Amino acid sequence: MTSKPMFQRVALIGIGLIGSSLARVIRRDGLAGHVVACARSEATLATVRDLDLADSVTHNPAAAVADADLVVLGTPLGAYRAIAETIGPALAAGAIVTDVGSTKCSVIAEVAPHLPDGVHFVPGHPVAGTENSGPESGFDSLFEGRWCILTPPPGTDPEAVDRVAEMWRRCGSTVETMDAEHHDQVLAITSHLPHLIAYTIVGTATDLEDHLKKEVVTYSAAGFRDFTRIAASDPVMWRDVFLKNRDAVLEVLGRFTEDLTALQRAIRRGEGDALEDHFSRTRAIRRGVIEAKQDEPY
Amino acid sequence: MTSKPMFQRVALIGIGLIGSSLARVIRRDGLAGHVVACARSEATLATVRDLDLADSVTHNPAAAVADADLVVLGTPLGAYRAIAETIGPALAAGAIVTDVGSTKCSVIAEVAPHLPDGVHFVPGHPVAGTENSGPESGFDSLFEGRWCILTPPPGTDPEAVDRVAEMWRRCGSTVETMDAEHHDQVLAITSHLPHLIAYTIVGTATDLEDHLKKEVVTYSAAGFRDFTRIAASDPVMWRDVFLKNRDAVLEVLGRFTEDLTALQRAIRRGEGDALEDHFSRTRAIRRGVIEAKQDEPY
Repeated sequence: MTSKPMFQRVALIGIGLIGSSLARVIRRDGLAGHVVACARSEATLATVRDLDLADSVTHNPAAAVADADLVVLGTPLGAYRAIAETIGPALAAGAIVTDVGSTKCSVIAEVAPHLPDGVHFVPGHPVAGTENSGPESGFDSLFEGRWCILTPPPGTDPEAVDRVAEMWRRCGSTVETMDAEHHDQVLAITSHLPHLIAYTIVGTATDLEDHLKKEVVTYSAAGFRDFTRIAASDPVMWRDVFLKNRDAVLEVLGRFTEDLTALQRAIRRGEGDALEDHFSRTRAIRRGVIEAKQDEPY
Repeated sequence: MTSKPMFQRVALIGIGLIGSSLARVIRRDGLAGHVVACARSEATLATVRDLDLADSVTHNPAAAVADADLVVLGTPLGAYRAIAETIGPALAAGAIVTDVGSTKCSVIAEVAPHLPDGVHFVPGHPVAGTENSGPESGFDSLFEGRWCILTPPPGTDPEAVDRVAEMWRRCGSTVETMDAEHHDQVLAITSHLPHLIAYTIVGTATDLEDHLKKEVVTYSAAGFRDFTRIAASDPVMWRDVFLKNRDAVLEVLGRFTEDLTALQRAIRRGEGDALEDHFSRTRAIRRGVIEAKQDEPY
């Protein structure tokens, strides 16, 4: 697709669903001269080798980023701070550091202080995924037709932002730039709360008496099924999302529980009109989702 | 498919998504000598005529059921009692009355007392649907590969149960028989609670400030989207489900809010291990859903 690589050396620190999907695009389209994948576990690196997802692999983040002109953090958020401390001294002048994490304020707070002057930090979040995890789960069309949000802090070099944006556009995404705090608020409602709710309801079903639990699976097509997919998402990744976006999640969760309590009260009191009113209002959002062409399955 | 119709005259009282899908199968496969559709609104009957979904149409439930050997109630649950009162005196001896409602205890309590001796009552619930409503939304494969639950009260004529079961098998469904109370418990968790939660979270988003609401739609693929589909379901149908299965819904909702409160507390306190444990346990249910082949889209 391109004659000249966009980057000389791309270091992927963490190579799960997102990192490996990005690796597939980079290698398919020759976007980098060299891709190095860094992971903690031997099993992950073995999969990367077996699937030929990178030119080289390493356990050592500092070695991975040496001479890299693009570094992409793709581990669970809880590992970011330690990785930033480790790679900081090893980063080349002029290198761009970006990430794919689901929260952005925490990333800026934990990563930026450890990056040396002359290194550009462009926090990012490709809004794409499936319930599967690990490098074997990635695929090169994961980002096509999806959004990628960049949240560069004020003063970030516009050229560095452009290069990261261009990489995501090559992946088929539409790039949007916004304030990190705003990102975390929006994603708390579109992503974090839905995952928390799905994890909760599936957990409630998991705790049912055995005879009921079996039937919950049998009759899951009646609605429950729609929740099981996102409640099968990576537990460590999501643990970190809730810890790192705590305030925004608790704020929107507070609104949700108020609304749920009001509906509970209407059910208990037999207030049919209140229920029907509420259930009628929610149809408009679905129409918006369909019009925005965000309703297609992965 | 059959040489001899299963029924002479089938009366569909209410003909929305479910009733019209059943009508399509009955007419496609010649399961009945005559199909009469009964609806309150002229627009619905006009659609039934335009789409040729029935041999005749009427506004009058008593006229519809006269000489029918099968009567299928398919209106919102809130209309059942009045319909049963109206059709009771008009039912032919030996007729079978069944229904497609999402709750079963309320149906038995409200319909059975109005049916004369010699009429067989076989409450039923095809566990199938989409978020669309009205006779134009039906399709003849809606029930294929889905469950249909029958909840005949003790003492119901087994031959009548068999005939209703056979009709649903001809629609492609697998038929299960269970106690009405158990049905209402199982569906409270697999269907009614998921719909209530989805209606709530989409409602919470609907109430957001305008600038946030627009972005919720834009970034809905991050999880929120999965909730908008079921929160677009028919408001009147769902109002009635919650009113008619109140006790079972409130019971399971109580469990859900306890579990959600525990997760909220873990987030506030930064208890990562508790979150990871919970999120790991919920993966098993997803595997069960996939193994039970209940994960295919409609």
